[in-house]
Amino acid sequence: MTHVFDQSIALTPAAQPHLFQGATHPAYANMVGPFGGTTCAQLLQGALQHPQRLGDPVALTVNYAGPVADGTFELTAEPLRTNRSTQHWNLLLRQQGVACASGSAVFATRRSTWGAPESLPPADMPAADAVASAPHAGRPAWVRCYDMRFPDPSGEAFHHDSQEQAHSFTRMWIRDEPPRAVDFASLAALCDAFFPRIFVRRRRFTPIATVTLSTYFHIDATALAAIGSQHLLATARAHTFRDGYFDQTGLIWAPDGQLLASSHQVVYFKD
Amino acid sequence: MTHVFDQSIALTPAAQPHLFQGATHPAYANMVGPFGGTTCAQLLQGALQHPQRLGDPVALTVNYAGPVADGTFELTAEPLRTNRSTQHWNLLLRQQGVACASGSAVFATRRSTWGAPESLPPADMPAADAVASAPHAGRPAWVRCYDMRFPDPSGEAFHHDSQEQAHSFTRMWIRDEPPRAVDFASLAALCDAFFPRIFVRRRRFTPIATVTLSTYFHIDATALAAIGSQHLLATARAHTFRDGYFDQTGLIWAPDGQLLASSHQVVYFKD
Repeated sequence: MTHVFDQSIALTPAAQPHLFQGATHPAYANMVGPFGGTTCAQLLQGALQHPQRLGDPVALTVNYAGPVADGTFELTAEPLRTNRSTQHWNLLLRQQGVACASGSAVFATRRSTWGAPESLPPADMPAADAVASAPHAGRPAWVRCYDMRFPDPSGEAFHHDSQEQAHSFTRMWIRDEPPRAVDFASLAALCDAFFPRIFVRRRRFTPIATVTLSTYFHIDATALAAIGSQHLLATARAHTFRDGYFDQTGLIWAPDGQLLASSHQVVYFKD
Repeated sequence: MTHVFDQSIALTPAAQPHLFQGATHPAYANMVGPFGGTTCAQLLQGALQHPQRLGDPVALTVNYAGPVADGTFELTAEPLRTNRSTQHWNLLLRQQGVACASGSAVFATRRSTWGAPESLPPADMPAADAVASAPHAGRPAWVRCYDMRFPDPSGEAFHHDSQEQAHSFTRMWIRDEPPRAVDFASLAALCDAFFPRIFVRRRRFTPIATVTLSTYFHIDATALAAIGSQHLLATARAHTFRDGYFDQTGLIWAPDGQLLASSHQVVYFKD
């Protein structure tokens, strides 16, 4: 039985080179259209499954140009330039010839080098087993595709008492539901699974839409495969909210403290 | 007399729509090829000066696909999709038909809304006047196009005693040299003027190359114009160094504490 996430990113080669067909999946529906993390994963999958792929993803940028309607789409994944150890991709998702999301990715063959972690996960994070799973009731469909565990009420996005907080910081445990071993495509989706920081900061709902997102991958495929389907430790915060836009940064660590991905996005908000 | 920065981003319309010609500028030369910040500014300028431009830049992503040689280049800036208040751009810099840098930008008309700063500049930063300008001698040409002032020896990138530090954090004052009122193009360049975090962390030189950079603009043109040519407060740090790549995040504030831009990049390093 194929995991629902793999169903959601399945692509079929089309007649032209670099062109594939895919479809939105009802399990990952958002309030309007699909969960943006699925769009990220679909665009990245275009390059991951491409016969000309070199190495592993190092960076992915997705620009949400317009709404994605439920149904099929055409996805273009084309290597723009391939160097000795790096490869640059152009990515595009269209419906009826109209661009809905554009993107770019950098892939690379990685080598073992000197290294150092600089940002560390929260030291006092309770174990995943010690935190209850957040409820799915009343949330968009895609939320049911994740098990999220928030130890701090101040980090939850659905405490809607309109008592503005001085911060929008969240820490949580998260994994696919049902469990699935993490890979680059699912990590790309996870990086967009942080609820909008404005919900946390203002403790109320506001209409929002992500306009651009960049995710950086800090681990190679072998080390990533060793993580398996454990809960991952994730944190998110914003730098500023101003004139209809805010940014947010999300970090995702393995339980042992390895940083798997960092992700940055800009989000439109209505008021 | 045109400021050297304006000379460096000058573009001339070419025969086809969305196509422009530009050239590298010797004042912004790096050790090999041009300073990457100039490339960012040139790509953004493609959209800024385009007759179909809507609003102000909210986000810019630049992927450095290969080396840029000294000399002329062809720059494509094409609106991919224009909505009511947002506009998505495809950007490309080529030499002899070969892609050297690709990019994307999101522009938007911004409106006044509720807002809140969340990240704040360092509270104890000494005034710019109280810090000496960093020397230019022995540095690449582009460094002479900036006045940088580092209050902390631990944040300097050219203390090459090979005594690895536990952090790569830098705070500095920075402005164009000679002074020039900040605008979106110069802010895009400033966001790549942070020295590589690996120099700070390891306190030694390592061959590096930025592979991708995303800059988010948090201010509209009117508020940005009010900043003028003052020194800006800038901070940078990394999340992790691993397997030939590290990331770094730079933040640039006005002296009054307004966050002007946040910028994130991934950098290849050799050993």
